[in-house]
Amino acid sequence: MSLSLPLRPDRRQSPVAADVQRGVRRLFSQLGHVSLPEFTLASGRRADVIALGGDGGLTIVEIKSSVADFRADRKWPDYRDFCDRFFFAVPDTLPREILPEDTGLIVADSFGAAILREAPAHPLAGARRKAVTLRFAHAAAGILHALDDPGAIADGRL
Amino acid sequence: MSLSLPLRPDRRQSPVAADVQRGVRRLFSQLGHVSLPEFTLASGRRADVIALGGDGGLTIVEIKSSVADFRADRKWPDYRDFCDRFFFAVPDTLPREILPEDTGLIVADSFGAAILREAPAHPLAGARRKAVTLRFAHAAAGILHALDDPGAIADGRL
Repeated sequence: MSLSLPLRPDRRQSPVAADVQRGVRRLFSQLGHVSLPEFTLASGRRADVIALGGDGGLTIVEIKSSVADFRADRKWPDYRDFCDRFFFAVPDTLPREILPEDTGLIVADSFGAAILREAPAHPLAGARRKAVTLRFAHAAAGILHALDDPGAIADGRL
Repeated sequence: MSLSLPLRPDRRQSPVAADVQRGVRRLFSQLGHVSLPEFTLASGRRADVIALGGDGGLTIVEIKSSVADFRADRKWPDYRDFCDRFFFAVPDTLPREILPEDTGLIVADSFGAAILREAPAHPLAGARRKAVTLRFAHAAAGILHALDDPGAIADGRL
């Protein structure tokens, strides 16, 4: 197995954000969801975590590790077009009052996470759900294949 | 990353079957499909390879490494309930006349594979397609998460 293809491709991520991401994924795993980090949507934007429930429900989690990090982001409402529920996830040190109140809220560290406020549901239409799920499956299996058989990616498909 | 969770969990697989499996997955990758080895269906049966196309099409490939291997299998028609196309994949050494003519046929080695006979299409109904695709996504992302964060599987969920 090659280690040349990183499982966490985002090297710009801060250590705090990486810890929050790990805790968030553990939380969703405990809830029966699988998740992917750094998932590129059809829009080109990248979701910090996307989780897929046993019932097919899609959740996007945007991680904010600092006040500046949140203030620099004007585009987070766009994520709602690609999921049924949207959460911000933050470390315990971030002042929560700066975050909007009409999204879900998760507090996390590297060991786990807790949902402080449930996310409002805005169910995806069938065609969009199908497209995001297919993209999720392709992303996960593509990385796994590249890890399993690095020679398979010689043509640059993955 | 831990190596304790094998990417190819089937240790009973013969070296020839492993070679064919690798070549088959490379072929489908070249065709724009992602694939998973040793995929357990809702029926409990395990598909040697399942591939998911860019359009959502599902293909199951059953590997037969020897005449005895084929003769011992009476249940391969059951796979058709879980895919749009079904192929046998064999090494070049296997006499092809023992295989049924109403399935697809692939010849493979460890470097690649070729489709000798296209598989008849039998499109899945929507609900079944959705269920198999969801199961595919869960399997792939679950393994990836376990590789990325072995501590996340301490509770045995994956």
